[in-house]
Amino acid sequence: MHADHVESTGLDLCVVGVDFGTLSGRAVVVRVRDGAELGVAEHSYRHAVLDRELPDGTPLPPDWALQVPSDYTDVLRTAVPEALARAGVRPEQVIGIGTDFTACTVLPVLADGTPLCELPEYTARPHAYVKLWRHHAAQDQADRINALAAEREEPWLERYGGKISSEWEFAKALQVLEEDPEIYQRTERWIEAADWIVWRLCGAYVRNACTAGYKGQYQDGRYPSPDYLAALHPDFAAFVTDKLDQPIGQLGEVAGQLTAEAAAWTGLPEGIAVCVGNVDAHVTAPAAVAVEPGQMVAIMGTSTCHVMSSDQRGMVPGMCGVVVGGILPGLWGYEAGQSGVGDIFAWFIRTSLPAEYAERAAAAGQSPHEYLTELAAGQRVGQHGLIALDWHSGNRSTLVDHDLSGIVVGQTLSTRPEDVYRALLEATAFGTRTIIDAFEDAAVPVRELIIAGGLTKNALLMQIYADVTRRPLGVIGSAQGPALGAAMHAAVAAGAYPDIRAAAHAMGKVRRGVYQPHPERAAAYERLYAEYRVLHDYFGRGTNDVMHRLRRIRAEASA
Amino acid sequence: MHADHVESTGLDLCVVGVDFGTLSGRAVVVRVRDGAELGVAEHSYRHAVLDRELPDGTPLPPDWALQVPSDYTDVLRTAVPEALARAGVRPEQVIGIGTDFTACTVLPVLADGTPLCELPEYTARPHAYVKLWRHHAAQDQADRINALAAEREEPWLERYGGKISSEWEFAKALQVLEEDPEIYQRTERWIEAADWIVWRLCGAYVRNACTAGYKGQYQDGRYPSPDYLAALHPDFAAFVTDKLDQPIGQLGEVAGQLTAEAAAWTGLPEGIAVCVGNVDAHVTAPAAVAVEPGQMVAIMGTSTCHVMSSDQRGMVPGMCGVVVGGILPGLWGYEAGQSGVGDIFAWFIRTSLPAEYAERAAAAGQSPHEYLTELAAGQRVGQHGLIALDWHSGNRSTLVDHDLSGIVVGQTLSTRPEDVYRALLEATAFGTRTIIDAFEDAAVPVRELIIAGGLTKNALLMQIYADVTRRPLGVIGSAQGPALGAAMHAAVAAGAYPDIRAAAHAMGKVRRGVYQPHPERAAAYERLYAEYRVLHDYFGRGTNDVMHRLRRIRAEASA
Repeated sequence: MHADHVESTGLDLCVVGVDFGTLSGRAVVVRVRDGAELGVAEHSYRHAVLDRELPDGTPLPPDWALQVPSDYTDVLRTAVPEALARAGVRPEQVIGIGTDFTACTVLPVLADGTPLCELPEYTARPHAYVKLWRHHAAQDQADRINALAAEREEPWLERYGGKISSEWEFAKALQVLEEDPEIYQRTERWIEAADWIVWRLCGAYVRNACTAGYKGQYQDGRYPSPDYLAALHPDFAAFVTDKLDQPIGQLGEVAGQLTAEAAAWTGLPEGIAVCVGNVDAHVTAPAAVAVEPGQMVAIMGTSTCHVMSSDQRGMVPGMCGVVVGGILPGLWGYEAGQSGVGDIFAWFIRTSLPAEYAERAAAAGQSPHEYLTELAAGQRVGQHGLIALDWHSGNRSTLVDHDLSGIVVGQTLSTRPEDVYRALLEATAFGTRTIIDAFEDAAVPVRELIIAGGLTKNALLMQIYADVTRRPLGVIGSAQGPALGAAMHAAVAAGAYPDIRAAAHAMGKVRRGVYQPHPERAAAYERLYAEYRVLHDYFGRGTNDVMHRLRRIRAEASA
Repeated sequence: MHADHVESTGLDLCVVGVDFGTLSGRAVVVRVRDGAELGVAEHSYRHAVLDRELPDGTPLPPDWALQVPSDYTDVLRTAVPEALARAGVRPEQVIGIGTDFTACTVLPVLADGTPLCELPEYTARPHAYVKLWRHHAAQDQADRINALAAEREEPWLERYGGKISSEWEFAKALQVLEEDPEIYQRTERWIEAADWIVWRLCGAYVRNACTAGYKGQYQDGRYPSPDYLAALHPDFAAFVTDKLDQPIGQLGEVAGQLTAEAAAWTGLPEGIAVCVGNVDAHVTAPAAVAVEPGQMVAIMGTSTCHVMSSDQRGMVPGMCGVVVGGILPGLWGYEAGQSGVGDIFAWFIRTSLPAEYAERAAAAGQSPHEYLTELAAGQRVGQHGLIALDWHSGNRSTLVDHDLSGIVVGQTLSTRPEDVYRALLEATAFGTRTIIDAFEDAAVPVRELIIAGGLTKNALLMQIYADVTRRPLGVIGSAQGPALGAAMHAAVAAGAYPDIRAAAHAMGKVRRGVYQPHPERAAAYERLYAEYRVLHDYFGRGTNDVMHRLRRIRAEASA
């Protein structure tokens, strides 16, 4: 059914966005003209994350994290029809579907897209499964990739702040080659899950520009060279040509049309536009109407991802990557991040909340987070006398060092739980400020900060971020930022808007300047931030390498 | 009744020791021939510590800590007869009484010993009361005392590691002069409570050599000069001659005979020997049979006090003081300390023990300390990946800086409460090791370590101290170390032993070498101790003065 026809009936045109997260997928049905979210449904992956054993009981080593691809298609089969039903929208109203995914989440498939783990002979082979973004068992490969690239002065290295992550495509693929050569040989395509799910929807494998650039070192139309790859491992020389290279689709472009099979799964009309794949953090930028240079979006949850487009290309130390069109067409898209944010607050509650506090929170009908936040909110800046470093889960940007650890300085016998809790909130704000400063120092201006994600509900935390970063803070107007962003890209792919900027202005949701930096508090934080930076450099840049030594001692003692 | 007569009856000779602590006094009746503790009784001070207001409601500023002298005589009236009754000892068996006190605990009295706070016109005047050792409101005076002494190169300064404490006699007296000159003028004697209680017992004011030296800067027969005092404050010039100077009594000497009044209070025979006053930590050394050079006793409770006699005089940086005969006649007596030890562990339990842990401890019938200790004991050295600095209550030795604060380095999302708890236990051991190293570096050998005080019951803690200090650890054989030590001094004063060494060998109690350093663990701790020392110097010696700045910021924010 043609869109014009639908419109002539007076019914609203809609798009569907599907967000594939770490533990579940969420589908949202969105009205094209204004971005209204008409219905949402979530489906939890049956196998969640395989980090101890395969479904058949085959045990996994430490640091592994796998997934099962059929869990993703189950989301299409369940969450999409359910969201549609909840929205009260007729299938013919839907003109396109878009997706976003965690990244780098990557799997080995045959030339027709069949995952190797679905071949009967490989169900017990760990390397045949999807390697989730937080599969951390390829550090050895990443170390060699980085060392060799630095030695050979590979041109792509500086686009990644000087270091690529063990989470990315090349490190994970090299691990397969070295640990299970047979699986590596059988791999016909080494594909991002973000693209695999689009393939399942439209029957065509289009590699999205975002993951190709951020996770596959695709820069200026080239991947790392066969020479370089051969120097890593002789059998790795043809990796790009044999298994990785694929026509690139730009974000918001049409990857293809919904197949009959996928139409049957989803209940959507066959033939509608299926958008090129995308990444959860990146797709959130337009959802938060961050479509101009210098508008940084921080997606704050267990960890924080910072994405920003700019007309300036800079070498920002320790960023995750810069990719042309990686977020918005025609702009340099930057990604940076903090490995631990909400995770650190949760760890504190789990390991350090006294019974008395837990009881008082329960009596007040508050979560421990709400209760501690309320107590902490009563303090003036600096009143707790503490400074913390937010590295309990390592440091992604700007130090790119996952072997760093946390620290709290200044505890006395009168230090209370709410004091440490507030110091940890502040530490993560100092971490974001450090990232912003790195951009500014590299002449890539950060003009505005917009927050998305679960932590937006903590008003004290938001105010601290405004005060610490000395910037007005906007907040995304949707609880489904990624799915909304995916839906907006679908609207562009379906031709409802000329580009994602136009879609963002019509469909995106942001409340700008909700939190304003308070001059006095901002000035007070400036002093504490100076202390943070001194400790940051002392512990993070090798003056005192105690954190690395403690980690080595810990590993030896645990061996 | 004469002692010989008692012996001829076949009854044991006994002595009484009375330990005046911070919150209570404890009396113990001890058999002279072998030190057997026959009866103990405790009396809590009715007014405890006045740190908010006087008994009449007069409010006190922050950092004040006062006491009421009649609470001390109440101990004589109640605990002594009770201990005697429990011991089943006839009064005529008792040949002497000895005391020990907290220090510097000091009060203004008339020439006859009447405390000014007992004069009706002064009951509402804070400066008329006893200033407890932990009255910390004379820091300003102490700072000026130290600065002027350094400027004038006063010879006594190096005997105190280069700095005297705000807790001591001169700082507290100068505070009275400056803040309440009338009380200062009416003060005829500025007297240690240790000596005041002896005066109450025997009717004579004898100034004990221990507090005169450690808390009154009495060195080589001289106090700080009138010149120096006049330069501090014109009206302070005659402080020593008018209010402080008094014949010195050596430890273990007779101060006088029990008066009829005190005999009536205590139920003890009039005329028995009353020993010269003494200090709780110092008197514990002979109680633990630490009477040879290089035997260091660490009295470990909320804080730790280290006392050691030596035939070597050294300038040990940051020690509290060195006094000839300050612990044992004829030897250099050294005192050092850690401001926070058990206090830090208690703070951790109070502020950081999750409900789940509290419940499991209760279910197992264990205290939280026992439960965490049991969990921590299962770890190998370094397995928690943490290093802490034990400065939550400041650093007494060797940095003499109460504005330092605590720190924990190395926390990750898998750090558990028992990990931090063990790191705190270890941090205090590293603190003691630092003190021992300072002695050794100053060519004052530390040959043996003997632990007294409440923390001796934690076997894990004791083993950690043995491993970290790489020394065999002895443990005192009495739960009443100070009172036993006071009683032993009474035995010497009564002539039952020729000197405190002989009394110690007969009456003291120690189990030597109970904990032996384990070579492998000791070697592992050597690496962690090296990390501790790097952090110690970085945060404690001004490389990064962040702790002082945080404290200032805290004070400003709280103002």
